[in-house]
Amino acid sequence: MDYTHAKPWEVRKLIREGKITTPTSGMCAGYAQANLAILPKELAYDFLLFTQRNPKPCPILEVADVGSRELKFIAKDCDIATDFPKYRIYEKGELKGEYTDIREFWRDDLVSFLIGCSFSFESELIDAGIEMRHNTMGCNVPMYITDIETTPAGIFHGPMTVSMRPIPYDQVVRAVKVSGTMPRVHGAPIHIGDPAAIGIRDINKPDFGDPVIIKEGEVPVFWPCGVTPQSVLMSVKPDFVITHAPGHMLITDVKNVDLKE
Amino acid sequence: MDYTHAKPWEVRKLIREGKITTPTSGMCAGYAQANLAILPKELAYDFLLFTQRNPKPCPILEVADVGSRELKFIAKDCDIATDFPKYRIYEKGELKGEYTDIREFWRDDLVSFLIGCSFSFESELIDAGIEMRHNTMGCNVPMYITDIETTPAGIFHGPMTVSMRPIPYDQVVRAVKVSGTMPRVHGAPIHIGDPAAIGIRDINKPDFGDPVIIKEGEVPVFWPCGVTPQSVLMSVKPDFVITHAPGHMLITDVKNVDLKE
Repeated sequence: MDYTHAKPWEVRKLIREGKITTPTSGMCAGYAQANLAILPKELAYDFLLFTQRNPKPCPILEVADVGSRELKFIAKDCDIATDFPKYRIYEKGELKGEYTDIREFWRDDLVSFLIGCSFSFESELIDAGIEMRHNTMGCNVPMYITDIETTPAGIFHGPMTVSMRPIPYDQVVRAVKVSGTMPRVHGAPIHIGDPAAIGIRDINKPDFGDPVIIKEGEVPVFWPCGVTPQSVLMSVKPDFVITHAPGHMLITDVKNVDLKE
Repeated sequence: MDYTHAKPWEVRKLIREGKITTPTSGMCAGYAQANLAILPKELAYDFLLFTQRNPKPCPILEVADVGSRELKFIAKDCDIATDFPKYRIYEKGELKGEYTDIREFWRDDLVSFLIGCSFSFESELIDAGIEMRHNTMGCNVPMYITDIETTPAGIFHGPMTVSMRPIPYDQVVRAVKVSGTMPRVHGAPIHIGDPAAIGIRDINKPDFGDPVIIKEGEVPVFWPCGVTPQSVLMSVKPDFVITHAPGHMLITDVKNVDLKE
């Protein structure tokens, strides 16, 4: 089945019914997808403040009300506990398991954070005629843990994770301008050029995702990455956290173009 | 004394020493000024989420750590309890008193929210050749409570307050574009034209500030206003809130031009 032109609410229904359990990349073209972090209320203030102080890696699309599995703004008739194809539960930083449905783990003190995803600005870059090498190669975008420290908030702290896309020199300015119009989904690059300048030792060995080829005449361009909140959560090792499984996102009702404001 | 070209840290020192107790409008040209709301920690999560859901009227410049009177990002060597020229303390929504120093009221559970102020985009509008009528008339900007509901969060809810500036028709687009580059200090207008469309019954009777003349060939342009969080706090009537006294702002070390990102 090809869900490229399906509607978000149709795909969310299929996911809820267990008929889709795959990554969501490429589904519902034009609609924004969201990362997930679910935390107990006692950690929610620190985490919300962390996202406020680090809006580039952690752009919030919506924070659900305490204990609520509903969303009010970015998706209608949505159940946070069933509408992602796959979830991960972590206890004290250790992966406890992967699940396609987390209703049985739900608690009244849980707060869900929906965080913007680079799929949104990638679709704009492609529309602007800029190749996404990882798409062409049919692999994941390479991601790296940098030596750029996030701004700490309460118990949360740690380095920023970035994603990298090789861009031909004559398209770098365009890539900055196009992604810069979308601050709610990471926005403009955080670094252009020498990987060592942000603490990346080997560009061919990403910490997450897959390596991609950088051709002659291309420069590596680095964007703040939505994996940052997850890697920060993992390093802080709170008692209980639920996230989506990488690539298994929520498809929202929000169009990418509406994230330009 | 004219403080137009003084440095923020010099003026903050004079304020701390009680040598300046006046409104700060016009001081330290080019530097951003900030509104203040101080709340007990038990209300801070709801208020932080309220600002996240209402970034246009409530653009956060910084949230201090719980119990801390220091700022880390927008002003160095600053004491939140002394560096505003005047404070107001409210108990259950009632004004308890005005103070030039709140050290004796400080508690370890207080959280300070520093919120962006329209002075920042006004200085950009003036640089762009757009008259600020209330400046020309030597009065306060007129502010109105609208029927535009803010997005509620926890206990916080209420209507948006807006500020109004009359703009000649041929400068309206420029005013939108110039203020639109500064989303961290309210950004683009929320409404242009007919006041009744946003629930304002009499443009000559503002709820706060002073009325200004709208000349032939000018249109009233409305911006989300930093009074919104204060009026929301007042209507929710929490047990204990400290704010700055209107017009008596913190002068930060942040240049207005740096709020364009």
